[in-house]
Amino acid sequence: MSSTHGQLDDADREYLDLAIEQARIGWDEGGVPIGAALVHRGPDGDRVLAVGRNRRVQLGSAIRHGETDCLENAGRLPASVYRECVLYTTLSPCTMCAGTAILYEIPRIVIGENRNFEASEEWLRGNGVELAVVDDPACIELMDRMMRERPEIWAEDIGVDASELGVDASELGADASAL
Amino acid sequence: MSSTHGQLDDADREYLDLAIEQARIGWDEGGVPIGAALVHRGPDGDRVLAVGRNRRVQLGSAIRHGETDCLENAGRLPASVYRECVLYTTLSPCTMCAGTAILYEIPRIVIGENRNFEASEEWLRGNGVELAVVDDPACIELMDRMMRERPEIWAEDIGVDASELGVDASELGADASAL
Repeated sequence: MSSTHGQLDDADREYLDLAIEQARIGWDEGGVPIGAALVHRGPDGDRVLAVGRNRRVQLGSAIRHGETDCLENAGRLPASVYRECVLYTTLSPCTMCAGTAILYEIPRIVIGENRNFEASEEWLRGNGVELAVVDDPACIELMDRMMRERPEIWAEDIGVDASELGVDASELGADASAL
Repeated sequence: MSSTHGQLDDADREYLDLAIEQARIGWDEGGVPIGAALVHRGPDGDRVLAVGRNRRVQLGSAIRHGETDCLENAGRLPASVYRECVLYTTLSPCTMCAGTAILYEIPRIVIGENRNFEASEEWLRGNGVELAVVDDPACIELMDRMMRERPEIWAEDIGVDASELGVDASELGADASAL
């Protein structure tokens, strides 16, 4: 996948790190290591509204991806708030999460990496969402490890069968064989 | 919005009625009256996997639309199951719910009506999802009443301010003025 750094500021790095922290918590819980943060960056300064992480495993959930869990944790918000927010996510959004950002007209998404998954960036840009892809080594390593050690859960999370991932079964780690 | 009836069978009517029942429960709970049902229609017959309803008000939720609540209620499912399912919904899906259907490759959606809202049908069709729009009077009446009596909640649910709905404030009912 292509890397598009876009314009990043120091605060972007800080908020992406909140998302990475969530991803690591999710991994340690046995889940999919994808995290997110929703930050209101309005004229009066920045405010972190919520963080969240993929909780498919933890909650037995089909809809709690990193981004949607984060928005759920933020609770009900007026349209005007979302329109001044930036969504930080460790991995390029799936169509569900992209559709959620478009629904709420979140104008900008900072994406940790898109090497391991990319399904919605063209659609997001076509809907006026500004994207910045960081190509962050920590985000890449989290997903590399996920696909090595828990490929079945990752496949389930993106709506495919593990056989469709192109993963060599002999390379699967302990977590995968226990499924 | 255009009406495209598509091919409907007797079972479609029965399953759409489950979604309508959910929408009515949601209305009675003080919420947004949109309901859904997920039905596995495989070679061995039909099985209703879950029903759900918009629970923005009931759960203080930003992501529990009718369709996503339904999929959440269905729990974690293998990709192969979604690919033999039909999703029934009383109202044309927003981008979040459409993105969820595309993520899980749900091949067919039966839509109660799209007169009161339509945001994703072209995108769904472009992704190979078969749509059947019923233009059902009961679904239309549920949303007409919602927009008359609870327009602020409806606006919030689709990520706009009430002023952007084009609703005449003098026509607002008791629920709206109490917000």
